[in-house]
Amino acid sequence: MNYNPVTKEIIEALEKVAPGRVMSGADINPDYSKDEMPIYGSNMPEVAIDVLSTEEVAGIVKICCDNNIPVTTRGAGTGLVGGCTPVFGGVVICTSNMNKIISYDEPNFSVTVQAGVLLKDLAADALGKGLLYPPDPGEKLSTVGGNAATNAGGMRAVKYGTTRDYVKAMKVVLPSGEITSFGSSVTKVSSGYNLAHLMVSSEGTLGIITELTLKLIPAPKATVSLMAPFEDLHACIAAVPKFFVDFRPQAVEFFEREILISSEEYIGKQIFPRTIDGTEIGSYLLVTFDGASADDLDPLIEKASEFFLESGALDVLVADTPPKLKDIWAARSSFYEGIKEQTKLLDECDVVVPVSRIADYVAYVEGVAEGFDFETIYFGHAGDGNLHIYACSKTMEREEFLKQVDEFFAPIYKKAIELGGDISGEHGIGLGKVGFFKEAAGSTNLELQRAIKKVFYPKLILNPGKDCYTVDELKERALAG
Amino acid sequence: MNYNPVTKEIIEALEKVAPGRVMSGADINPDYSKDEMPIYGSNMPEVAIDVLSTEEVAGIVKICCDNNIPVTTRGAGTGLVGGCTPVFGGVVICTSNMNKIISYDEPNFSVTVQAGVLLKDLAADALGKGLLYPPDPGEKLSTVGGNAATNAGGMRAVKYGTTRDYVKAMKVVLPSGEITSFGSSVTKVSSGYNLAHLMVSSEGTLGIITELTLKLIPAPKATVSLMAPFEDLHACIAAVPKFFVDFRPQAVEFFEREILISSEEYIGKQIFPRTIDGTEIGSYLLVTFDGASADDLDPLIEKASEFFLESGALDVLVADTPPKLKDIWAARSSFYEGIKEQTKLLDECDVVVPVSRIADYVAYVEGVAEGFDFETIYFGHAGDGNLHIYACSKTMEREEFLKQVDEFFAPIYKKAIELGGDISGEHGIGLGKVGFFKEAAGSTNLELQRAIKKVFYPKLILNPGKDCYTVDELKERALAG
Repeated sequence: MNYNPVTKEIIEALEKVAPGRVMSGADINPDYSKDEMPIYGSNMPEVAIDVLSTEEVAGIVKICCDNNIPVTTRGAGTGLVGGCTPVFGGVVICTSNMNKIISYDEPNFSVTVQAGVLLKDLAADALGKGLLYPPDPGEKLSTVGGNAATNAGGMRAVKYGTTRDYVKAMKVVLPSGEITSFGSSVTKVSSGYNLAHLMVSSEGTLGIITELTLKLIPAPKATVSLMAPFEDLHACIAAVPKFFVDFRPQAVEFFEREILISSEEYIGKQIFPRTIDGTEIGSYLLVTFDGASADDLDPLIEKASEFFLESGALDVLVADTPPKLKDIWAARSSFYEGIKEQTKLLDECDVVVPVSRIADYVAYVEGVAEGFDFETIYFGHAGDGNLHIYACSKTMEREEFLKQVDEFFAPIYKKAIELGGDISGEHGIGLGKVGFFKEAAGSTNLELQRAIKKVFYPKLILNPGKDCYTVDELKERALAG
Repeated sequence: MNYNPVTKEIIEALEKVAPGRVMSGADINPDYSKDEMPIYGSNMPEVAIDVLSTEEVAGIVKICCDNNIPVTTRGAGTGLVGGCTPVFGGVVICTSNMNKIISYDEPNFSVTVQAGVLLKDLAADALGKGLLYPPDPGEKLSTVGGNAATNAGGMRAVKYGTTRDYVKAMKVVLPSGEITSFGSSVTKVSSGYNLAHLMVSSEGTLGIITELTLKLIPAPKATVSLMAPFEDLHACIAAVPKFFVDFRPQAVEFFEREILISSEEYIGKQIFPRTIDGTEIGSYLLVTFDGASADDLDPLIEKASEFFLESGALDVLVADTPPKLKDIWAARSSFYEGIKEQTKLLDECDVVVPVSRIADYVAYVEGVAEGFDFETIYFGHAGDGNLHIYACSKTMEREEFLKQVDEFFAPIYKKAIELGGDISGEHGIGLGKVGFFKEAAGSTNLELQRAIKKVFYPKLILNPGKDCYTVDELKERALAG
């Protein structure tokens, strides 16, 4: 696309909308050039603005629309697919200061928040009212706006679903700068096309979500986690499908020894055992149950423990006090930081397969990985089939790493689709996966998505280069005039 | 739109796709001219075809696309908004014979079915495997394809959500006749725009759903219903918000004396009491709990009974055996038939408001209704704020009834929107509510919906006159050429 540069006049116009907050050149926070996944590159925007209100977002977008300037919206920038990287420069809108919890509607189990509220702040605040906001991505410092834009999932999706299941309504700034609302705060709606759910996982390419009305549920009164160590990954994963069917846990995570060690080193505390009776633990299952009372959970814990021991677990350890639970889940939530600190080059695939096919799929991926020079690390949400497969190298050259990773990911994405899965469970497509997404979606569905994107605005100024048009395609369109 | 008539040549071409099943003229089942709500009129199609496969649907749609012939798809035709009325004639595709349950994927809690499977057949079949398909509209003879097209809700939505929450993936015939798939059978998906959920509640205007992969859950082991009779509607409804917050039931229905009597007369059996200790019952609350065992539910029943008595219930009656449960819910499920049999003219509004506003809203509607000559009957899903408000008359002239009903509905829809609700909770927009929908959606969202519709096919051959274009608008477009 032929995007225009941000001129001095445009900066002056933006300054009228967001006085004192229009940063340009060296004043821009360098974090605004990328997200948390460095492999997809970075690019500085021409202007960055920390917005405070829907009206400001609308004013900025209107100016960019009139002048054909790309707009990339970011929350906390904790994404892992380059989703908020301003590839074409232009204006970055950061919602982090739109962080108000606007109001609760307790009888209707909902809360309305600004898009920049952090997940951890919403979760804690709701819990103070006896309510649970179930989506629980590993990264608690992400914003709820970002969670909606990517349909973030997390640990509890196996029982409670993903962000989409909790988005009732939203305020949106369209690419024209017009403000509108999609959805309704009520439980049942059957009127017309569901535009609110179309926005969820659209990664800021159709409109900018500035407020969200989210569903809450009564917080479970009791929570217990069990940890079952196994000698190897295969026995560990093989236990999951039957466990899942019989026990309906809140979360079922699996991970390997190496990633746990990295994570514990990162947080500076050893929480999990490394050996049981002299046998080295290769792989761990971490399971959470919730219920109405601790007494309710006791028989479940007993039965689940028996189940794991029969499935080959070396032991079963129970975490039933708040400090123990906090420690365990802190280690689990720091996997990405742990890996990142211990490697030089890193790329990730957030594939999802049916729960019953995880074991087959991991065996397949291990076979494919053998041909490459990088190391692979596996962890993920065993209960919902969403695997995080990391390719890491301390020694490879960047170009060679990128080439090999592309060759590695292509067949494993293809295999996931073959098994009835998808290329992203919770991280989105962003910049990093557009090529694979085009392949997976197929030409019919890709063309529908592109046409829908053009319905929102044919000049494609919102978050260009993500989701359904690659950067190269947009450049070609620009050359074609 | 300038739709073409179905010529002899086109019938011959259709006959090649669905040999022996292309009905025309007097051979067409007259039911194919309308749904279950006679007030919105009827219109015979030129051709009707009972299809057997996705490929047949694709072949038929391709011919209609090439010849600019409107296509209206119907399942069991149990809708209440004229959604499957072939207003512009053309071809009706009936999916009722596409009624195979294709396969279960039990470890992944899903089932794949043809669109014409009846809700009651899927529910019974799944239950035989210990699985529950939670959506539970009153009309069990509806098809799951129709349920998806309208996002049917029903009794259990308060706890389990609506059809949308159970649609994982689907096979779809696009208006071009191309076959595609939307969604994925896995729990988490975060890749691109959610086209599967865009189809849900699109009422056959974007594509034709021919297969669905639906989510199931483990069937609760025990179910108990409580019935609490009240002297009047207001005390009955006022009890709901607090009950809902404290008890999280599976279903909370309310209804008035008159409708219960009609329904019991229709099914030929008196199930509910009419007086308690000499006091005439004006209104009923019917509540269901589910849980892991009967023992689990006992304390809940006790507490709920106390709650209702404190809230002014005249008594509390428990139905905890299968025959009692069946009787109670048979009476509840026959409300529409009961009303229909006892009146001449009938129209309905399927409005939804936040649970906490039901009492205020009903009081407002009663005030509005006072100015009109028809009678009003209220019942609905108190737990999720979805009310069915019927206007009935045995004596009015049709034209006067239509005029008065329009004047009645306009302010009550407006009020529902004002309270944060919506104009349809579960029945959809269809033919009957397009005018009100246009008003409620507002011009920005209406134009987005229309543009999305044109993405799927600009000539608008699928189910014309429904959802976002009125019949008159399409006729004007035809005149404009």
